Amino acid sequence: MPGAGAGDRVVPVRCHELAPVIGDVAGNLRAVEEAVAGAVAAGRRLLVLPELATSGYHLTPEEAREAALPTGDAAFDRWARLLPEDAVLVVGFAEAGDGVVHNSAAVVTAGGVRAVHRKSHLWDTEKEVFAPGDAAAVVVPTPVGPLGVLVCYELEFPEMPRGLALAGAEIIAVPTNWPAVPTPAGEHPPEVVQAMAAARSSGVAVLCCDRRGEERGERWTRGTSVVGTDGWLRGTTDAEGRLDVDVELRAGRHDLSTRNHVHRDRRPDLYV
Amino acid sequence: MPGAGAGDRVVPVRCHELAPVIGDVAGNLRAVEEAVAGAVAAGRRLLVLPELATSGYHLTPEEAREAALPTGDAAFDRWARLLPEDAVLVVGFAEAGDGVVHNSAAVVTAGGVRAVHRKSHLWDTEKEVFAPGDAAAVVVPTPVGPLGVLVCYELEFPEMPRGLALAGAEIIAVPTNWPAVPTPAGEHPPEVVQAMAAARSSGVAVLCCDRRGEERGERWTRGTSVVGTDGWLRGTTDAEGRLDVDVELRAGRHDLSTRNHVHRDRRPDLYV
Repeated sequence: MPGAGAGDRVVPVRCHELAPVIGDVAGNLRAVEEAVAGAVAAGRRLLVLPELATSGYHLTPEEAREAALPTGDAAFDRWARLLPEDAVLVVGFAEAGDGVVHNSAAVVTAGGVRAVHRKSHLWDTEKEVFAPGDAAAVVVPTPVGPLGVLVCYELEFPEMPRGLALAGAEIIAVPTNWPAVPTPAGEHPPEVVQAMAAARSSGVAVLCCDRRGEERGERWTRGTSVVGTDGWLRGTTDAEGRLDVDVELRAGRHDLSTRNHVHRDRRPDLYV
Repeated sequence: MPGAGAGDRVVPVRCHELAPVIGDVAGNLRAVEEAVAGAVAAGRRLLVLPELATSGYHLTPEEAREAALPTGDAAFDRWARLLPEDAVLVVGFAEAGDGVVHNSAAVVTAGGVRAVHRKSHLWDTEKEVFAPGDAAAVVVPTPVGPLGVLVCYELEFPEMPRGLALAGAEIIAVPTNWPAVPTPAGEHPPEVVQAMAAARSSGVAVLCCDRRGEERGERWTRGTSVVGTDGWLRGTTDAEGRLDVDVELRAGRHDLSTRNHVHRDRRPDLYV
């Protein structure tokens, strides 16, 4: 880390694209377990897995209910036991709520489930399957630092990553399932552009984990991305859909110049 | 315009990079006048010129005072007289305020100066030269539709374009002077990434006009960009620094899917 100074930190992260299969929750849970074991063995300290990794995406309401897990499910304990004390897992899952199903993401450490964020902005047919979350995204204290979680489409609302960064998140983990959309030659997928802009404007690292595997005719953007606090992409996803990056959190990352600080330059008095 | 329907509009816009010279206000005003005449002759209906087009950028406080114009200056009237009734000019200028100088942008129509926006977020040494604006950016009704104006660095605060779009702006004009910064190969300048993200997340067109001409050792990004309401770049700047685009404002531009609308999907109850 060139020019590293006091207060600089490095977090070894991994995003790992999985290919969950609708109707095979047990197999999907095993795939998560294998991904956790693999990340730990590779020395990664933060593992981000896709949205709905336990269930698959294009669910009917009935399939969603059948695949939904309560946050007390034993699977979370199995994953927690694989994690060393200084490691963190973020994984998307179909959550069995109070008579409804949420599209949620869990933050898991060796101590168990630390937080669950329910997707509050639902995409397209999700509106017919999931109940939206009704709580603001919160910053979770974790062994890798203050962590924010957004699920997929939520990232496209600039208020969401901005709010997490202003609340102290240093890293934002974003489990996603991004359906492929037309993108001009030479351009990143549109969601990645949002991630880059969010990272730079707030000096926060943004880690997006997409999924793979065709599902009911849907193809995915494969937009898995680790964006540094300077807004630029880091690393390359390997053939197994793993993206390993040592994310730099430099003490001076919020300073754009000697006179400019991305947070202190804000003028909340002028914002609607 | 493929698939054009009721409510669709097209606005012929031009961004025109100028190369103002410090100490030659008269020459800079002539260059603006020539740019206005050229845009009108070419049938453009909205012309965006750079930040501080009348004065140059790297000013000492004394040079800024000498170059500053009141909004009642005769130059604005000369430009207004060149404009047909349905055309709009947005131009950055050093504004003579009440004992201070502002880095401002004027919206000019055939009727004269319709609005002035004073840059509220100042970049680097600007903090020693200009007084920041203390008013929120507002949407200006114009012959080309509801128009928002931001100056340069303001675009990098997601609250700013978002606020204008939510207040009804259909186009956001951004006079800029973007000093060149290191940018990874294959990537757009960081400010252009912000413009693309802002456009897509709010379904608003964003028109950025950078400057050209080395000034006191500073080189510029030359990031002049017209971003469509879908977040993608349009057109190519010609050798004279002119970028002409027919900006499409489709009636359905806020709909990302049959169930998703970039504004109505917001959850203000969850934002900080």
